[in-house]
Amino acid sequence: MPLPAALLARLREIFPDDALATTDDDRRAAARDNSRHEHLPDAVVFPTSHAQVEALVRACRAHGVPLTARGGGTSSTGASVPVAGGVVANFMRMNRILRIAPDDRLAMVEPGVTNEALQKALAPLGFFWAPDPGSAPWCTVGGNLACNAAGPHAVKYGATRDNVLGLAAVAGTGESFRCGTQTSKSAIGYDLTRLLIGSEGTLAVITEATLKLTPRPAALRSLRASYRDAASAAHAVARIMAQPATPCALEFMDALALRLAREHQPEAGVPEAEALLLIELDGAPDALEEACAAVEAAARVDGLVQLEVARDEAQTRALWAARKALSFAQQAVTQHKINEDVVVPVSRLPALVDNVRALAEKHAVPIVSFGHAGNGNLHVNFLPRDVDEIERAYAALPELFERVIALGGTISGEHGIGVVKREFMPLALSGATLGLMRGIKAAFDPDGILNPGKLLP
Amino acid sequence: MPLPAALLARLREIFPDDALATTDDDRRAAARDNSRHEHLPDAVVFPTSHAQVEALVRACRAHGVPLTARGGGTSSTGASVPVAGGVVANFMRMNRILRIAPDDRLAMVEPGVTNEALQKALAPLGFFWAPDPGSAPWCTVGGNLACNAAGPHAVKYGATRDNVLGLAAVAGTGESFRCGTQTSKSAIGYDLTRLLIGSEGTLAVITEATLKLTPRPAALRSLRASYRDAASAAHAVARIMAQPATPCALEFMDALALRLAREHQPEAGVPEAEALLLIELDGAPDALEEACAAVEAAARVDGLVQLEVARDEAQTRALWAARKALSFAQQAVTQHKINEDVVVPVSRLPALVDNVRALAEKHAVPIVSFGHAGNGNLHVNFLPRDVDEIERAYAALPELFERVIALGGTISGEHGIGVVKREFMPLALSGATLGLMRGIKAAFDPDGILNPGKLLP
Ligand SMILES: Cc1cc2nc3c(=O)[nH]c(=O)nc-3n(C[C@H](O)[C@H](O)[C@H](O)COP(=O)(O)OP(=O)(O)OC[C@H]3O[C@@H](n4cnc5c(N)ncnc54)[C@H](O)[C@@H]3O)c2cc1C
Ligand SMILES: Cc1cc2nc3c(=O)[nH]c(=O)nc-3n(C[C@H](O)[C@H](O)[C@H](O)COP(=O)(O)OP(=O)(O)OC[C@H]3O[C@@H](n4cnc5c(N)ncnc54)[C@H](O)[C@@H]3O)c2cc1C
Repeated sequence: MPLPAALLARLREIFPDDALATTDDDRRAAARDNSRHEHLPDAVVFPTSHAQVEALVRACRAHGVPLTARGGGTSSTGASVPVAGGVVANFMRMNRILRIAPDDRLAMVEPGVTNEALQKALAPLGFFWAPDPGSAPWCTVGGNLACNAAGPHAVKYGATRDNVLGLAAVAGTGESFRCGTQTSKSAIGYDLTRLLIGSEGTLAVITEATLKLTPRPAALRSLRASYRDAASAAHAVARIMAQPATPCALEFMDALALRLAREHQPEAGVPEAEALLLIELDGAPDALEEACAAVEAAARVDGLVQLEVARDEAQTRALWAARKALSFAQQAVTQHKINEDVVVPVSRLPALVDNVRALAEKHAVPIVSFGHAGNGNLHVNFLPRDVDEIERAYAALPELFERVIALGGTISGEHGIGVVKREFMPLALSGATLGLMRGIKAAFDPDGILNPGKLLP
Repeated sequence: MPLPAALLARLREIFPDDALATTDDDRRAAARDNSRHEHLPDAVVFPTSHAQVEALVRACRAHGVPLTARGGGTSSTGASVPVAGGVVANFMRMNRILRIAPDDRLAMVEPGVTNEALQKALAPLGFFWAPDPGSAPWCTVGGNLACNAAGPHAVKYGATRDNVLGLAAVAGTGESFRCGTQTSKSAIGYDLTRLLIGSEGTLAVITEATLKLTPRPAALRSLRASYRDAASAAHAVARIMAQPATPCALEFMDALALRLAREHQPEAGVPEAEALLLIELDGAPDALEEACAAVEAAARVDGLVQLEVARDEAQTRALWAARKALSFAQQAVTQHKINEDVVVPVSRLPALVDNVRALAEKHAVPIVSFGHAGNGNLHVNFLPRDVDEIERAYAALPELFERVIALGGTISGEHGIGVVKREFMPLALSGATLGLMRGIKAAFDPDGILNPGKLLP
């Protein structure tokens, strides 16, 4: 269904020629993300200013045409796929770093700047922005905001939602607004900033963000602990998290993850163990000694097989080799990986790992678990190798979510909902909670033009 | 205006005799908070269960009668004063600590537990809950949540909003709902948890909270630095905040604050200086040495007069004596203190202090500034001593807020809006932002029964 001619004419007024694209190639480039979903938009625009975005939202609203914001297109959930067609606003050209104010620990940026470009600009000043998704070279701050993205360092530094001070945006009504502040503290009314963060572009299109910066610690130290079984490793995680020296990364790998990494990269020295913890500490050099001793002590639980501390950069790289090998090792098994991202209270990690193993057996499909154990956030990846296994994997999914929720957890830790988990939202949230979310959606986007078909079932 | 008889009858069904109060004394006890505002409710109830709260909200909604939740009644903004009459729900009896789970770094509590009672239960387990308002012995977790309360330690550990995982509540519609999770990370839809935090009881009544706990650091160290002028002290604050050893408290006192403290308590050894920083560091003992050295180095700017480090508990108490003396010193000046709580980006602190001094001169009323400099959050207290000065102080208020906003700051750092700052909200927020907040209010509380007359102008 092509766009109404009047809307197209209006878009031509708003955007210069090279910022409005309607060829098949252009449309195809905006049709996919990192999920298995795909849908062609009718047009793609490349905004470079807030004024353009405001005009764009108003035009789409006037014509009742869907509008989907797009950053790097790396979402794993179909969040950036324009499933109802309409216009895609690709923000890659609206990518300026407007201001870095180290004294105020903040940076103001346009949404299209990539996470990595921002980090590169901050590093020489001795700062970083905490969200550290694996997709940093390609994903944008706008996408990070919209998905509440995180990464291994969230265990100490929080997710995107914990690291933003304020936003400028255009609501689905077409109205421009600012929310939040440029200060690290405020108590003035409803928190619209954190409401937009994680809203997957369904409430408002973000045009500017004031980000909270963190000073870069002076030194890093890595540890690796292998365990007889997952329960012992999980017990160690709880003990590590219950003492004050919070690691800046606390990653877990299960037996299958270790086996795949070992087979795929025999030279990486991946330990022969049933479970592994990879631990990173940061801080001032002296402090690190003490923190390391405290974490070591906490990691020494019954079931520990081996504990290694990296003494230099080469040793650090060697310790992390297992984790690095894992992505490729999974790809070597199958091209049909279904990656899930569930989260349980840290104390329930052993139960989660047991449940995943039971699920793999019951449905006869390989499942590998690894990830951000310090947050109880595991990537539970199904690795089906043929059509039958794919079918069985999808059949197992709802069961995984039900078990996770029964353990006091929830269905997404960092990837979000998008299209792929939308139907499972009622497992995690009651009708009343979803009803309130719909009320908020109606207040921001009464005609439902912003990224329809996402997040809310 | 007495309550409709049918509502009163319904309240008698919901609450036992000793949990429904309508005498003048009972009503007077719920008519005030720590502001100068006062209004009698028509009845006071004392819920002890979620079911009672749900029934209560439904009954009030059915009769269109205002309902104001009340914790300790310590709000400084009139937030807990039932300005439109109706029913007050006093939560002091719904005060159980339901669960403390150190492994998961969380505690589940009812809203009426006082901040101090919670901290006392957590301390033996090696944890604390970060929000640390000066009112801790009297204020409740429910009040802390509703006001996004904070205190000196927010500079390192964040405010209430940064330290909550999930809530149970009853919306103004009468519908019960849960939001958030029991995990330290999640990405599942709109963040209703943080939306309720800071909403001052205008969206929903909170009946349970899952709080994020922080492990207690092993050691503390205090420093005190005095400066030739406020600009030097503010410069030191920015330098301290730009390095990784973030203090757990970084408090400022201006010249008048120091003079008042000195005069009121000559034996306290308050330094003769134009500006003072009180700095607290926490961490593991060895780490503390290093952090202290780093902070000392940052504090040594041009204009430093003296820098002292406390070597034991007695010295620590001595260093903080100036700050402790200040409350009473202000009371000795006047019973008509107007305490404001503004916030600016840290780099604008010198300008804020200058502006406050200019305001005090222009309006000929004493103003003292002190507080949480690490967050740029100063308590700017007007100390008018007679009717004329009171009048001039109120005349100066809007000017203070305008100047703060011109500096990139905002009108409340931690006390919130309530009644007293409601009319100033349009200075801080645009019509569009306020409009979206009103939309959210309408979705949660369509009949406007929850704490009417607060927060939104
Ligand atoms: C290899 C790889 C590794 C990954 N690792 C991680 C990880 O470690 N942690 C993690 O959390 N995620 C990870 N992801 C998922 C993904 O990278 C993140 O969700 C990221 O935040 C998406 O950013 P993006 O710019 O690509 O957004 P897109 O995919 O383009 O869009 C994502 C969502 O953001 C919305 N959006 C984009 N810009 C705006 C805007 N300006 N205003 C409003 N809404 C907007 C879109 O509409 C969409 O709903 C990974 C993905 C890949 C492919
Ligand atoms: C001496 C003193 C020192 C103070 N120091 C600080 C400080 O350092 N930092 C700071 O931030 N504040 C401080 N305050 C202000 C005040 O203590 C805080 O705002 C505190 O959070 C209020 O808690 P309370 O239980 O007294 O709430 P109340 O005053 O009873 O109520 C405050 C608000 O919370 C709402 N509320 C209460 N319970 C619920 C519930 N269950 N559900 C929904 N809404 C609810 C009320 O409706 C009202 O809007 C201080 C006050 C005093 C008197």
